[in-house]
Amino acid sequence: MSATATSTTLLDRRNLSFLLYEWLEVERLTERARYADHSRAVFDDVLELAERIASDTFAPHNRAADESEPHLADGQVVLVDGIETALQAFFNAGIAWAGVDQDAGGLALPYVITTASFAFFQAANSSTSGYAMLTIAAANLLLANGSDEQIERFVGPMLEGRFFGTMCLSEAQAGSSLADITTRAELQTDGTYRLFGSKMWISAGEHELSENIVHLVLARIPRAPVGVKGISLFVVPRVIVDPDGSLGERNDIALAGLNHKMGARGTVNTVLGFGEGAHTPGGSAGAVGYLVGEPHRGLAYMFHMMNEARVEVGLAAAALGSTGYLKALRYARERPQGRSLGAKDPSLRQIPIIEHPDVRRMLLAQKSYVEGAFGLLLYCARLVDDEKTLPSAEGRADAHLLLELLTPIAKSWPSQWCLEANSLAIQVHGGYGYARDYEVEQHYRDNRLNPIHEGTHGIQALDLLGRKVRIQGGRAVSLLVDCIGDAVARAQVEGEELAEHGGALSAALQRLVLVTDALWGQAGAAEVALANATVYLEAAGHIVVAWIWLEQLLAAQAGEGAFYEGKRAAGRFFYRYELPKTGPQLDLLGRLDRTVLDADPDCLS
Amino acid sequence: MSATATSTTLLDRRNLSFLLYEWLEVERLTERARYADHSRAVFDDVLELAERIASDTFAPHNRAADESEPHLADGQVVLVDGIETALQAFFNAGIAWAGVDQDAGGLALPYVITTASFAFFQAANSSTSGYAMLTIAAANLLLANGSDEQIERFVGPMLEGRFFGTMCLSEAQAGSSLADITTRAELQTDGTYRLFGSKMWISAGEHELSENIVHLVLARIPRAPVGVKGISLFVVPRVIVDPDGSLGERNDIALAGLNHKMGARGTVNTVLGFGEGAHTPGGSAGAVGYLVGEPHRGLAYMFHMMNEARVEVGLAAAALGSTGYLKALRYARERPQGRSLGAKDPSLRQIPIIEHPDVRRMLLAQKSYVEGAFGLLLYCARLVDDEKTLPSAEGRADAHLLLELLTPIAKSWPSQWCLEANSLAIQVHGGYGYARDYEVEQHYRDNRLNPIHEGTHGIQALDLLGRKVRIQGGRAVSLLVDCIGDAVARAQVEGEELAEHGGALSAALQRLVLVTDALWGQAGAAEVALANATVYLEAAGHIVVAWIWLEQLLAAQAGEGAFYEGKRAAGRFFYRYELPKTGPQLDLLGRLDRTVLDADPDCLS
Repeated sequence: MSATATSTTLLDRRNLSFLLYEWLEVERLTERARYADHSRAVFDDVLELAERIASDTFAPHNRAADESEPHLADGQVVLVDGIETALQAFFNAGIAWAGVDQDAGGLALPYVITTASFAFFQAANSSTSGYAMLTIAAANLLLANGSDEQIERFVGPMLEGRFFGTMCLSEAQAGSSLADITTRAELQTDGTYRLFGSKMWISAGEHELSENIVHLVLARIPRAPVGVKGISLFVVPRVIVDPDGSLGERNDIALAGLNHKMGARGTVNTVLGFGEGAHTPGGSAGAVGYLVGEPHRGLAYMFHMMNEARVEVGLAAAALGSTGYLKALRYARERPQGRSLGAKDPSLRQIPIIEHPDVRRMLLAQKSYVEGAFGLLLYCARLVDDEKTLPSAEGRADAHLLLELLTPIAKSWPSQWCLEANSLAIQVHGGYGYARDYEVEQHYRDNRLNPIHEGTHGIQALDLLGRKVRIQGGRAVSLLVDCIGDAVARAQVEGEELAEHGGALSAALQRLVLVTDALWGQAGAAEVALANATVYLEAAGHIVVAWIWLEQLLAAQAGEGAFYEGKRAAGRFFYRYELPKTGPQLDLLGRLDRTVLDADPDCLS
Repeated sequence: MSATATSTTLLDRRNLSFLLYEWLEVERLTERARYADHSRAVFDDVLELAERIASDTFAPHNRAADESEPHLADGQVVLVDGIETALQAFFNAGIAWAGVDQDAGGLALPYVITTASFAFFQAANSSTSGYAMLTIAAANLLLANGSDEQIERFVGPMLEGRFFGTMCLSEAQAGSSLADITTRAELQTDGTYRLFGSKMWISAGEHELSENIVHLVLARIPRAPVGVKGISLFVVPRVIVDPDGSLGERNDIALAGLNHKMGARGTVNTVLGFGEGAHTPGGSAGAVGYLVGEPHRGLAYMFHMMNEARVEVGLAAAALGSTGYLKALRYARERPQGRSLGAKDPSLRQIPIIEHPDVRRMLLAQKSYVEGAFGLLLYCARLVDDEKTLPSAEGRADAHLLLELLTPIAKSWPSQWCLEANSLAIQVHGGYGYARDYEVEQHYRDNRLNPIHEGTHGIQALDLLGRKVRIQGGRAVSLLVDCIGDAVARAQVEGEELAEHGGALSAALQRLVLVTDALWGQAGAAEVALANATVYLEAAGHIVVAWIWLEQLLAAQAGEGAFYEGKRAAGRFFYRYELPKTGPQLDLLGRLDRTVLDADPDCLS
């Protein structure tokens, strides 16, 4: 009865090709110098390789890693075997080097291609992917901000998979409020630092998967300015790396405990104690750390990576949505149950449940969420390429600005709606969907993490409405309006249905712009505006994804055959069932609703 | 860091009193002959008793039963200890007798009171409550439809907790489609039957908690009419009960396997084999069963209990929503994090997160879902009392009809929105909410069952739009329109805000009625109408709950103090944030949308 993932239930390759080549014209990136050595054949090889390794090594232990979550034995973290094998395959194939600059030894593949290929790993096993993603992100951060020595000592081994990486931000008393971290870093006479403090929610914080673990740690140097302007970033390796690259003493980092989660269990989640005297490198307690860049600029370095990190959270959510959808689709085709409305005769054979309209509704909703999310994420990934490689400085600046605006949506929208897709995948399976023999319930549990980590849904909302729509006097919003306006204009001449979709999108966008102005135009604006920031985020998200769908429908317009028919059906679904949900949200925002703001906390019971 | 449930985080007793006495005027039920011996003091004693037993014995093992789910040892089902202790306390206190007729030895308490009291058990431990609920439901079914001998032999021991009960409907090939069950029951010369077949998803199907298990099994007698009109109901005890009430031979029922679920793990879920020769009662294989009532009427008997069973699923969902909300509220008051908008100085102390408007939004949403759901469920429970005890036959018939209409909503709405409440409770807790140290993640997993069992969301939708709105030419809808109209009229004279709410409700209801007529008024109506039955169910659900909120706001209108302020804030939230969501749903229904109906299953990929 149980059924496991195969390559055909991870991502829809046909759809991926459509998004990359038919819509985003990614092949044209090879016209730019950075990507000139590449071709579509190279891109396809990378996707093919990712799909194969994901299917062969990541997917098979996805369930086992959930069932046997990390635990301690003799003080060591024990993980299921498949994790190490899969990550070895990943790093041995050189995938971690794919996006790295050529002069740093990488392949300099477009970010849109590495993103698409990484989605296979996320779909196959998002927990095991976590180790790879964190390592690559930490390596990229060092490449961008580290000293030559730091890069030489750490980055190579990380991209080879000998050292893994982590990001140590949160503390028990400071989750969303990084201003309140208290871990301190004391300067030593040799220019290194010693760190003291406790870090919470550290994914991949301790394990035996790699020779070393390179922690990137936020901490305060004594007498630093209070708040976020006094936070510095340090490289703190689990094992000290000697100048010749060999491994030296254990650093003073101790595993203080494991966190146990509803899902995402294969990624060990830890509480780490720095400088508690567990080890005494060089004869004294304190975790040896190396300052990255300048003092007090740590958060800026972290946030430099934030757009990509948040796109990757969205990607994980979309990948889980995708595999859940493809499994629900397969189940709906294979599972006989009941009869059609017109043929209730119980002596007739039962029909596959995909024949029931309500099951199709649940499938179309999933497809519209998953393909809308993937479209948005790949669009954002291409903006990452554009901000690096567009010929004009203005083009690069605009790409960066648009990416800034879209990032909170790219993080939150897939986290919300592809989680909903997983819930619908359970529902399509009925009772079987709730049973652990099937995989969809795990996808749902795994995906529930995504609206929380890397900035909760509420934090993304504050980022969008409190910051992003206002930078450069609203220039990012203007760029978005131009992009959408362009799509709407193209839709006008592509037949009645697309013109109608374009009209609906245009009207919703216009209201969003008016509402944005109204929210910030009033006296004492911030308080009222931000009280409904989450509603704003959700309305903006649906409007942006409606635009992404319109782009896809335009690209699919001339296509014939089942794939294009399915694409049109899902786009139609989004326009008829989803975009209209923004109406009441915009009404609420437009009237500057104070219900939440005025509710007295003491009256809640 | 971990925190467990106490009586104050199960249900809000103050709110329960408000709903029962200030709004539903349940005390007035004592004016009716059946309830004349009772008083508010008796009702409160029952609620008090339930709260105490739930807190003291049900809550403490809720987490343990999730972590150590039922497993087999030497062929026996092993459960955590707390389950048996709690159920003994439950049955020893006589709670199972509370709703039973006095001439059958019960207390004849109103169903609205037994429902309210049962919510404490559901909130404390919905899995352990499952054993009690199934036993009481099976006993009630036998009381209503069994022979005197069946009642004498089984019902007493069940209500005393010596025998537990189950409902055996589904089979692996027949979940939602009961017409397709194949378990067969062969008549023996002594008037008993022998059953042969396999039953799937049987909650509480095998355990050592009670002396006996009384299975109520749907099966076909050979040569019965095909489909649902050929299904009969049988009592099939695990151990045969001899005429003197003593336990005899083991019946031919075998545990074929355990189902493992995402949540609701404390309720053992089984696959049972009947008549496979595991035992040979009277010397031959076949599970001995006794026909309940007449042949081929089994489904009618089952469905006779269905309104109550479905109200109880809704109740479990609301109870889980409630305990999650109260824990989130406590956490939001205790957890310091960040600072208010106007005071970003990081040297200031952090504020409790309830001070952040977005956290209050999540709390108000939960409160509006939970208290809306409880209001609806207690209203429905009172209709169960009314259909039995209203003085006039017409009143009883109307109560029955209105209950029929509201039941699919009472089942599905809390299952959808109190699950969403649990998701918001996780979100309020941030990363901690995703960790298993806290209870909210378990509530979310437990609650995910409720949109599936006892008829999925989609099945409820077909029931509402395909059947309930059409019985007696739409009379049930007319009754609902009258009830809502009455509340709207009262709201008109209670100040501007309630008048405005009433106006919004009235407008939405009017559209729902028009849409209902439009859906059924077209040519070939059924196909198009039912394709969007789920959207209809959701719109109708929000309108009905808006009405329930208006009733609560009217009852709270004159109240002063924090409780009433909180009630008004949550009601306001529902009217401003929730009711407007029905607008786009009604638009979609009104234009007889064919998106889903016309989507070609072969084009989905």
